[in-house]
Amino acid sequence: MDVTRGRLLYEGKAKQVYEVVGDPTHLVVHYKDDATAFNGVKRASVTDKGVVNARISAFFMERLAGEGVPVAFVRTLGPREELVRRVTIVPVEVVVRNVVAGSLAKRLGLAEGTPLAHPVVEHFYKSDALNDPPMNEDIATALGFATAAELATMRALALRVNAHLQAFWAGLGITLVDFKLEFGRDADGVVRLADEISPDGSRLWETATGRKLDKDVFRRDLADLGDTYRELAARVFGG
Amino acid sequence: MDVTRGRLLYEGKAKQVYEVVGDPTHLVVHYKDDATAFNGVKRASVTDKGVVNARISAFFMERLAGEGVPVAFVRTLGPREELVRRVTIVPVEVVVRNVVAGSLAKRLGLAEGTPLAHPVVEHFYKSDALNDPPMNEDIATALGFATAAELATMRALALRVNAHLQAFWAGLGITLVDFKLEFGRDADGVVRLADEISPDGSRLWETATGRKLDKDVFRRDLADLGDTYRELAARVFGG
Repeated sequence: MDVTRGRLLYEGKAKQVYEVVGDPTHLVVHYKDDATAFNGVKRASVTDKGVVNARISAFFMERLAGEGVPVAFVRTLGPREELVRRVTIVPVEVVVRNVVAGSLAKRLGLAEGTPLAHPVVEHFYKSDALNDPPMNEDIATALGFATAAELATMRALALRVNAHLQAFWAGLGITLVDFKLEFGRDADGVVRLADEISPDGSRLWETATGRKLDKDVFRRDLADLGDTYRELAARVFGG
Repeated sequence: MDVTRGRLLYEGKAKQVYEVVGDPTHLVVHYKDDATAFNGVKRASVTDKGVVNARISAFFMERLAGEGVPVAFVRTLGPREELVRRVTIVPVEVVVRNVVAGSLAKRLGLAEGTPLAHPVVEHFYKSDALNDPPMNEDIATALGFATAAELATMRALALRVNAHLQAFWAGLGITLVDFKLEFGRDADGVVRLADEISPDGSRLWETATGRKLDKDVFRRDLADLGDTYRELAARVFGG
């Protein structure tokens, strides 16, 4: 079935979202090459970034769907485009952490790399204006962002996704340090994994060396982000 | 049984803690008149503050103990001093909120007074150096600050204390907006409500007018804190 891209509905920092002509239940997502960090303060265009993110995200979404995880992703339309079910995004970002890094390290005054005895689920209020502040499940239900049942589903799915991704990356000698997920409700009220699963929203460290293979390379000027993402894609899909 | 105050063990912003001569299982807590805000940046001495805090805290701890809540508080020794069981403080501060105010309002960009559909429990890492940053129960167990069982007990006790305090203050025409609790483990591993329950660690708004009757009066220079605390004591204990 052919999909014709319609009106641009939304443009974010790394993606554009389009209507599908004649189909109100689906959307087209287009991955841009724009890299931003620190809530948009730092910007650049990185050749192939959108292609690598789209390819890796589609790869994981297909694997997870195959294991029964409800996802918004439907199929790839091109190197930077995918068809997804139209969902209402829950304004609660879910972060899963296996090792202390990033904002948690800073917030709690801990060294990056500090081990966690078990995976940790954190919740953030999805708000660019407020820089995605931390909150918790109690706050999310008390303010009507999500129901307790939805949050329980999101937590369970997040931990299941973590187990899957952690095992996958471990097979490539890479430690999944942490990653962010977003969820949406479809027309039937089913909570589905939405947005993307990519090195933009994950921390991936080469296990043997600690070398970073994710967007921190850009945030911290550690190497060329395009080279890093191309290397990562080669490891996932073969050179 | 006489209690003789021994060596000063610890001096905080509002209290001193002393050993008890000949009794390693108890401590003496002394309430100072020092007021501090913004993690010690703003300071003053407020006449009777320590006396009012000690009296109100003892009043609530006795009522809660009478209802079966395990507390570290044992008895009042004088207008500013109390005998408490020696506990190891769990480095997880528990905040219960009934209405949006303070740091939550700021963090989520909400107006103070925004209603919450149900009481909310939040967790903060007890660290003056880090300004008590937000965390959650997952992080607390993953970093070994407390066990899952201890956190479940703390949450249940916090909500029970909230129901008790909320009803008490409502009877005086005062809204319990939020409050902070600390917990400790005794020698037998029992989790006990520790620290204090006072207008220093609570937000109390006159329900009819919204007038603040708590330490925000000092933080925000709204009125004389000593006058406010004496008025509050008069409402609790009679003029």
